[in-house]
Amino acid sequence: MSASYFDDIGPIAFEGPQTSNDLAFRYYDPDRMVLGKRMEDHLRPSVCFWHSFCWDGFDVFGGGSFDRSWHRLEGQEMAEARLDAAFAFFEKLGTPFFAFHDVDVMAPASTMKEHAENFARILDPIEERMQETGVKLLWGTANLFSHPRYMAGAATNPDPEVFACAALQIRQALEATHRLDGENYVLWGGREGYDTLLNTDISRELDQLGRMLSLAVEHKHKIGFKGPLLIEPKPHEPTKHQYDRDTQTVYGFLERYDLLADVKVNIETNHATLAGNTMDHEVAAAFALGIFGSIDANRGDPQNGWDTDQFWNDPIEITRTMIHILKHGGLTTGGFNFDSKVRRQSIAPEDLFYGHIGGLDALARGLLAAAKIIENGAWQDNLVSRYADWDGPLGQEIMTRASLEDIAGRALADDLDPTPRSGQQERLENMILAAF
Amino acid sequence: MSASYFDDIGPIAFEGPQTSNDLAFRYYDPDRMVLGKRMEDHLRPSVCFWHSFCWDGFDVFGGGSFDRSWHRLEGQEMAEARLDAAFAFFEKLGTPFFAFHDVDVMAPASTMKEHAENFARILDPIEERMQETGVKLLWGTANLFSHPRYMAGAATNPDPEVFACAALQIRQALEATHRLDGENYVLWGGREGYDTLLNTDISRELDQLGRMLSLAVEHKHKIGFKGPLLIEPKPHEPTKHQYDRDTQTVYGFLERYDLLADVKVNIETNHATLAGNTMDHEVAAAFALGIFGSIDANRGDPQNGWDTDQFWNDPIEITRTMIHILKHGGLTTGGFNFDSKVRRQSIAPEDLFYGHIGGLDALARGLLAAAKIIENGAWQDNLVSRYADWDGPLGQEIMTRASLEDIAGRALADDLDPTPRSGQQERLENMILAAF
Amino acid sequence: MSASYFDDIGPIAFEGPQTSNDLAFRYYDPDRMVLGKRMEDHLRPSVCFWHSFCWDGFDVFGGGSFDRSWHRLEGQEMAEARLDAAFAFFEKLGTPFFAFHDVDVMAPASTMKEHAENFARILDPIEERMQETGVKLLWGTANLFSHPRYMAGAATNPDPEVFACAALQIRQALEATHRLDGENYVLWGGREGYDTLLNTDISRELDQLGRMLSLAVEHKHKIGFKGPLLIEPKPHEPTKHQYDRDTQTVYGFLERYDLLADVKVNIETNHATLAGNTMDHEVAAAFALGIFGSIDANRGDPQNGWDTDQFWNDPIEITRTMIHILKHGGLTTGGFNFDSKVRRQSIAPEDLFYGHIGGLDALARGLLAAAKIIENGAWQDNLVSRYADWDGPLGQEIMTRASLEDIAGRALADDLDPTPRSGQQERLENMILAAF
Amino acid sequence: MSASYFDDIGPIAFEGPQTSNDLAFRYYDPDRMVLGKRMEDHLRPSVCFWHSFCWDGFDVFGGGSFDRSWHRLEGQEMAEARLDAAFAFFEKLGTPFFAFHDVDVMAPASTMKEHAENFARILDPIEERMQETGVKLLWGTANLFSHPRYMAGAATNPDPEVFACAALQIRQALEATHRLDGENYVLWGGREGYDTLLNTDISRELDQLGRMLSLAVEHKHKIGFKGPLLIEPKPHEPTKHQYDRDTQTVYGFLERYDLLADVKVNIETNHATLAGNTMDHEVAAAFALGIFGSIDANRGDPQNGWDTDQFWNDPIEITRTMIHILKHGGLTTGGFNFDSKVRRQSIAPEDLFYGHIGGLDALARGLLAAAKIIENGAWQDNLVSRYADWDGPLGQEIMTRASLEDIAGRALADDLDPTPRSGQQERLENMILAAF
Ligand SMILES: [Co+2]
Ligand SMILES: [Co+2]
Ligand SMILES: [Co+2]
Ligand SMILES: [Co+2]
Ligand SMILES: [Co+2]
Ligand SMILES: [Co+2]
Ligand SMILES: [Co+2]
Ligand SMILES: [Co+2]
Repeated sequence: MSASYFDDIGPIAFEGPQTSNDLAFRYYDPDRMVLGKRMEDHLRPSVCFWHSFCWDGFDVFGGGSFDRSWHRLEGQEMAEARLDAAFAFFEKLGTPFFAFHDVDVMAPASTMKEHAENFARILDPIEERMQETGVKLLWGTANLFSHPRYMAGAATNPDPEVFACAALQIRQALEATHRLDGENYVLWGGREGYDTLLNTDISRELDQLGRMLSLAVEHKHKIGFKGPLLIEPKPHEPTKHQYDRDTQTVYGFLERYDLLADVKVNIETNHATLAGNTMDHEVAAAFALGIFGSIDANRGDPQNGWDTDQFWNDPIEITRTMIHILKHGGLTTGGFNFDSKVRRQSIAPEDLFYGHIGGLDALARGLLAAAKIIENGAWQDNLVSRYADWDGPLGQEIMTRASLEDIAGRALADDLDPTPRSGQQERLENMILAAF
Repeated sequence: MSASYFDDIGPIAFEGPQTSNDLAFRYYDPDRMVLGKRMEDHLRPSVCFWHSFCWDGFDVFGGGSFDRSWHRLEGQEMAEARLDAAFAFFEKLGTPFFAFHDVDVMAPASTMKEHAENFARILDPIEERMQETGVKLLWGTANLFSHPRYMAGAATNPDPEVFACAALQIRQALEATHRLDGENYVLWGGREGYDTLLNTDISRELDQLGRMLSLAVEHKHKIGFKGPLLIEPKPHEPTKHQYDRDTQTVYGFLERYDLLADVKVNIETNHATLAGNTMDHEVAAAFALGIFGSIDANRGDPQNGWDTDQFWNDPIEITRTMIHILKHGGLTTGGFNFDSKVRRQSIAPEDLFYGHIGGLDALARGLLAAAKIIENGAWQDNLVSRYADWDGPLGQEIMTRASLEDIAGRALADDLDPTPRSGQQERLENMILAAF
Repeated sequence: MSASYFDDIGPIAFEGPQTSNDLAFRYYDPDRMVLGKRMEDHLRPSVCFWHSFCWDGFDVFGGGSFDRSWHRLEGQEMAEARLDAAFAFFEKLGTPFFAFHDVDVMAPASTMKEHAENFARILDPIEERMQETGVKLLWGTANLFSHPRYMAGAATNPDPEVFACAALQIRQALEATHRLDGENYVLWGGREGYDTLLNTDISRELDQLGRMLSLAVEHKHKIGFKGPLLIEPKPHEPTKHQYDRDTQTVYGFLERYDLLADVKVNIETNHATLAGNTMDHEVAAAFALGIFGSIDANRGDPQNGWDTDQFWNDPIEITRTMIHILKHGGLTTGGFNFDSKVRRQSIAPEDLFYGHIGGLDALARGLLAAAKIIENGAWQDNLVSRYADWDGPLGQEIMTRASLEDIAGRALADDLDPTPRSGQQERLENMILAAF
Repeated sequence: MSASYFDDIGPIAFEGPQTSNDLAFRYYDPDRMVLGKRMEDHLRPSVCFWHSFCWDGFDVFGGGSFDRSWHRLEGQEMAEARLDAAFAFFEKLGTPFFAFHDVDVMAPASTMKEHAENFARILDPIEERMQETGVKLLWGTANLFSHPRYMAGAATNPDPEVFACAALQIRQALEATHRLDGENYVLWGGREGYDTLLNTDISRELDQLGRMLSLAVEHKHKIGFKGPLLIEPKPHEPTKHQYDRDTQTVYGFLERYDLLADVKVNIETNHATLAGNTMDHEVAAAFALGIFGSIDANRGDPQNGWDTDQFWNDPIEITRTMIHILKHGGLTTGGFNFDSKVRRQSIAPEDLFYGHIGGLDALARGLLAAAKIIENGAWQDNLVSRYADWDGPLGQEIMTRASLEDIAGRALADDLDPTPRSGQQERLENMILAAF
């Protein structure tokens, strides 16, 4: 029995900061009220299927190091045993959501027909386990990057037959997400970009990608799926350049193909930093541009230039991000999905728990500190007062009525010499740190 | 006499690849016909004022190392001596264009009034020298980042008075550019971003920046300036985050503020690489999105993480970029502006020539190789045939008529198994290299 | 009076985590006992002269934004006013140490003679203020990078006359450090490397650098200076390549020139990360190699690829570093020197305090958490047990007696199949975080 | 027959720069004399086994895309078919050397015993093919990173049993290299470092690594192997930190464990750039420190932060590297080993040839340009004259006799004011480019 893989562990309980139990929460306390809402409802944490239940610990330099019991099985039997293990883990961890790619949950398939059949066959077993455990689906998605047919992209492939294969997977995964009451549907374009510009027509490929999104939006409405579609930005890897580079880039793409009403972003911390952004920037920019959707919570390694997908366990960085989420009213359909994996040397069943416990505790600490900052008010007050003159006469004149000549004339006539004001970066940084 | 600073040198002549003269061109031959157009008309090279005539060789760790004769003068006298030196240099080098910021050419000013006066006073002297030498203006711009008043941004400053100061500079620089028959007007938002997100309201700042652009567009039409406005993307530096990150980001900004008709991009090589892009990507993306304007030709140093603005002397990288320019019909109002500076240790007058000669020869080699590739046709042919199926029945069906269901149905019914085709990256790379 | 620049502020008192006073310490409590030693004696914090009292806020893109009162003076008068301001700041902040370059404290000089005179003239005033305030000297150093004569290096300059100028500055600064009872003498080779390898003979330059170090060591013994000489590693900037790249590189250099007995490293956080290392790696490596000296406490900005020298305010990263220092018995002659500067927009006198308060509080939190970890013992226990088999028979056999053949034979004979053990990375990361 | 995999192609002939044949050399002409030596003897090119004959095109995000005929076989049959294919490729390409890891050439093994047997069983087949084709072994090595037993390192593993397994592989691979007349034996420590410092004792691990090297050196002498042992530096990946970071770091390690007489470096381009160095720096530094051994010729992708191992096809960068090799008398036991792989989309047999042809042509162009530069003499002349004063009286005085006091005294007495001289970076860069 695969479920027995975790038999010696859990359930994980909240024991508070002073506990010496490595298999307990120090800060994550689902029912604790924070700013009038349960902590769990603030964070909406989700465990991902691929990293924790599909990956066997291989990397580019070496083979699988894990010895998960279900990896020794095959086909549908393997797939169901894997489901058992996963739902056992979800229950013991006590998190309310999970997320999956089609290929994560099904028996492996070689052809499109087999894919369609194998995926269809796993939906009943998933649904049963969801009902038994009460665990809900944060989002589903289709894996359009692992099969070699996608080596040159899915929607952006030079071969329209590959686009058609992708369309089949998206249709099926979107409908499955709808059936399983998923709250969002995610698209990550891991191969939607290029390895070399020398063989690539950016213009055609962008149009193809825009077309696929439009088709998915149309289908979503047709089947009555209410959740948003979410694009997950990433700058590159496995490609040299991925079109959905970061939040600001995705915004331009959505504008171009008229998708702003239906598509938002699923922001991953590790992708943010690979793109040269901070996570709080990506989140703040998404809110500013009206396309915030959900979060893939993880982190990269500053010493390694690729997507390491480690658990996001920096409560300070989380606080800096969380203040923007709280300021904008909190998550709606989105959640904090642990797109995170334990290290290749973390081969014990316990390690999967340590990783998620660390991630949950860090999110909880970030939430508590952010709530303190929001309640204190000084951070928002500083922002408001810093820009206050833009709500005054000159600011309003500039933004609504004046011409360049008018404004330039004013500067000259008054020989303007604006008073320098401190940006107070250090004071504001201290404020964040004092909230712990 | 400042003009005498270069007395011992030049003019620089084309002598061909075999010359042993360090002060001659090996490849840059302005009148040589390439694909039916003079080389100079293809490249439209421009020397920039700031790096070569204003910078004294200081860096963050040490003071000025150059001993330019005009640096010992002051005020209007200095400004005119500097003009003399610059135009003497332009003539000896034989390049047709130059580019400047307002503060590069004028006597230093402390107040806005003084700024306006000093800038106005230098326009006649510039115009005279342009007429005497025949050197033309590729673009003008206003420096909205060096004066401490802009430490928190110009258009995006929390103080609308600073916006007004910037408006005055833009108005004046735009009108001067118009008067001097400049072909474009450039905006680089060196401080339009933030040092810390903790004190920043992205939403307000983007609106302010959009407003300034709209005001400039309106004014451009009012005064009858025909050239495009050009935004110069850069990811950061001096800021931590600059809003005009790269071409795809600027595209989204222009869409958002409805500026696509009047504003394009001035793409700098060093900014491209700092943003994690290749230069050929930026140029190809700008053409794909319809916003290509002009080029700031330089390069960074892969060992240094800032904007080193060295001369772009990699003919291979230039070729990879130039094929996209040629494919799209070549430059129109844009040019190759040497936003490039000699190193701090390159203190001799000759060094300014070595730098520009290397840059011009590299551009010429890149142009010649790109022309060979375009004439040969194999590169374009590969692109066309690679995507040919998108012009066939399935491709057209997908792009114009079918629903997701239709396409998915087709994949399933036919159990599609698309034939894998090589991406031929290595063959295409060899093709580029064989063109030298 | 320059001292009056800070008249409205301080002294800064410890008020505890709950204070709402931005100008108080929340964690830094000098007399608090931690592992049997006063917190101040653990941290030995030092304020640096250059960033806080010499820099005027300029950056490469713009002029000075600060309006420090002494910047309006000149010569010796300026230098003494600057001293007054600095010592007033030290006293109000309550830190026990400071550090300086020769040029930081003296009246500016053009020639070597003037340099020698002006530096000599400021030593009495420094000594007086040290006696009045009780503030001690952590280290002195000579600035061998700002004057244009050093543009191509100091010891590694192709011109031996430049080496001689550097020798004069080193002699004088080393003797001054001795006279002022400095605890260490630091060398940072900001220009000891190259801008282009094309004009550089690495072999000669390394020998020159080795020679300068040997001369300084010899002189140190001659004058009876007891403190260590400290090299400050940095990978590049202002150079493209600096010879003293990181701790492991400096170790090889010290081996090569037989300097291990007298020279150690002064490790700067920002330099560590620019070199692609973590700070805890640099510190742990320095202890492992026997060359740990002192710390320049600051941080870089992951979005900016240069030496931003911001205040190190990440208590988690500090904890990860501090556990290595505590494990090895703590600091001896070294300290935590704030080689840190407020941002260019932080123009108010208060901002200098906010920066240092944030830095001190973060160090204090890091120390407290590290002490908790050391006292708990689980971190060290895990290390010991992980390597325990190396103290067993096979481990000892391998390390002391066996040949390759013996060991290989054993592996083959026993068909060794080592038991995989978890690396427990996530559990250990949780352990660090739980210490806050 | 696997050899038939390449039946439609080759042999590859030199046809000169004007050929339009994609399967011919434009510059690589083995018998062409360059500076009195055959081009092949200058370059000593080697094809590697792992990338071209073992890798199936998988990456972290997707499965194998290649369809090499031997990948469908198993065990010894697969291993021999793979040998056939490889040697057919070597012959058609016409390169004189190859290189391999033990596991590349043998049937897969699960246990150490099986490893020893399977490796032993393939040596006769290799030797036969070497004799038939005349292809020689540049170097052999043991793969100490792919099997999960090495997940925490080989020599640096916390378990001495893993060290023993590694010792067995090294012994066998070293002896096989000796038997096959290999010219060098290489060690790459892919897992010799750490994923987290939290579970790592650097001091112990360095001693273990030093011990393994010493054992290998001892064994090399015992069996009479004449070639050098070569460490291949890399900064990280798959680890977070690898101890053999770069050439300067390896130098320090060799000094520490007294290995300088027997161990040198095998420098890989992609590892150099990942470590923040240029390739010419690494090579020049290795010569300066007396540890230059051999080259792994490839390149990374500046947009991707990992070891992409693409073919090194930048003749300019090669020239900058080659001038240092020529200046020091050329390669001895070393060669240019193509540690390079075609892209995952380059699935055709031809692509393997395109990759290597591009690599060989680029090496040939680099060699020809470097030879031109060396013959011209201006580059070396500039170096000599730049440092000439170090051979004069003051330079010699400083390097051999004077004390710090003497030299400082001289600077003061003469009030030295060294004449600034241009570093001429741009002129030197033009010189390199003019050699093409
Ligand atoms: Co993700
Ligand atoms: Co990721
Ligand atoms: Co520019
Ligand atoms: Co630039
Ligand atoms: Co420092
Ligand atoms: Co620094
Ligand atoms: Co290699
Ligand atoms: Co590699």
